[in-house]
Amino acid sequence: MIQSKELQGAAVGVFDSGVGGLTVAREIMRQIPNEKIVYFGDTARVPYGSKSQDTVTRYSRQIVRFLRTQDVKAIVVACNTASAYALDSLEKEIDIPIIGVVKPGARVAAEVTRNGKIGVIGTEGTIGSQIYTDFIHNINPDAKVTGKACPLFVPLVEEGLLQDPVTDEIASRYLTELIDIGIDTLILGCTHYPLIRSTVGRIMGEEVTLVNPAYETAAELKKLLTDCNLLNPQAPALGDNKYKFYVSDGAEKFKRFANSIIKYGILSAKTIQIEEY
Amino acid sequence: MIQSKELQGAAVGVFDSGVGGLTVAREIMRQIPNEKIVYFGDTARVPYGSKSQDTVTRYSRQIVRFLRTQDVKAIVVACNTASAYALDSLEKEIDIPIIGVVKPGARVAAEVTRNGKIGVIGTEGTIGSQIYTDFIHNINPDAKVTGKACPLFVPLVEEGLLQDPVTDEIASRYLTELIDIGIDTLILGCTHYPLIRSTVGRIMGEEVTLVNPAYETAAELKKLLTDCNLLNPQAPALGDNKYKFYVSDGAEKFKRFANSIIKYGILSAKTIQIEEY
Repeated sequence: MIQSKELQGAAVGVFDSGVGGLTVAREIMRQIPNEKIVYFGDTARVPYGSKSQDTVTRYSRQIVRFLRTQDVKAIVVACNTASAYALDSLEKEIDIPIIGVVKPGARVAAEVTRNGKIGVIGTEGTIGSQIYTDFIHNINPDAKVTGKACPLFVPLVEEGLLQDPVTDEIASRYLTELIDIGIDTLILGCTHYPLIRSTVGRIMGEEVTLVNPAYETAAELKKLLTDCNLLNPQAPALGDNKYKFYVSDGAEKFKRFANSIIKYGILSAKTIQIEEY
Repeated sequence: MIQSKELQGAAVGVFDSGVGGLTVAREIMRQIPNEKIVYFGDTARVPYGSKSQDTVTRYSRQIVRFLRTQDVKAIVVACNTASAYALDSLEKEIDIPIIGVVKPGARVAAEVTRNGKIGVIGTEGTIGSQIYTDFIHNINPDAKVTGKACPLFVPLVEEGLLQDPVTDEIASRYLTELIDIGIDTLILGCTHYPLIRSTVGRIMGEEVTLVNPAYETAAELKKLLTDCNLLNPQAPALGDNKYKFYVSDGAEKFKRFANSIIKYGILSAKTIQIEEY
């Protein structure tokens, strides 16, 4: 497939309900550093995890329309809930590659489990949708998949309690059930969770493999762009705005949080009215 | 002022970012049981507490437009953040009485304090706006008002951890500063907080008076309706739909939570698309 240099040089669109998807953007920056990124965080309507499929799909459609105005060459749905609820609809509606974070995470989990017992932690929406279970069963119909919603993890992370006895206590409660079942693989099925990976890992023990869909998604994006001949062959010119960040509310607050996660220097974040798209 | 029976029989509109305002609706039901209520909870965009003034004001305007379609005779902004950020604008834009929860709570706190040291707990938005401080200073310029944002209280309440060691621990951390200052009066400046009133009360000690703006707001509403001759002189007819509940997302989930707070039996909750107003 021959693609124009202009198309190869276009940005990848990445979106999330808020700041969580920055863990995915960070992996893309690490694994395919030539790529430009336009990131959108829906901070005016965050969180998605407790909202319905209809609402999350409507919001996701608006965001895709916004990202298309930025001439992106591909889109990454860097939010587990939106991937679970909206990706199927979005895929049918657009003519550029779009991937979510669920399938890459599910595939790796299905591959690395030894005893076939896989745990998934995520928001109410992601867990309730059973989407990780469905994808894993497509690959390994015998796998026993147990989901556990962990609604307090996102607020605890956003409050900055990454290493804290309270987070330990809450994590222990949420994870006991998965330990008792004897899972050997645990999917961190929400983009905030890699930020408390060490807590989760300590509680689960060394024998349990933690799967971070952010890492797998960046790897899948690299493969997809390569297959479609859409990889940017060269780094953007100096002075070119490589990473652009948009939010629907609170650009300054977003910038502070983002700069604590991403060490590449976020020059600016702009607020847009996402309902208008 | 002479008012028609039709106007007196109209409902009071009550709105909140989600379920929290039900503690205000509950007080209205208790204190003025003849009044019909149309409640709107913005569950598609909840929470407001971490969002900007512009966004909260835009959302509040849409909700007021929706409530007007229900022919309400007065509106209660049953959300501290919306009261803090949007009430000033809303008051100028409509021609029916509208009250928030901040002023009634501030007035009572200014009245009951003995040592002039008042604490306020609330969302980031409410505390950052300094609105309680401003209202209290209007009444008592010498009062020393200390605000403390408690972002984890809402998720802890929504997770149902009303009586729990984790909630105790988090509350102790948030409240230490206020204990050290020696406040004798504490405003529960977020509609969720009355649900953990006993935890907060135990930590603060018996000497500290807890002010619940929900109670004061219902009392102020009763006075306002009386002054404007808008009180409903008789109970709505049996079979009349006395309490109506609308949300922007997840009506079933809202109903479950609402029925755990309000014991009057919530017959139905409907979902509407609030962005269209």
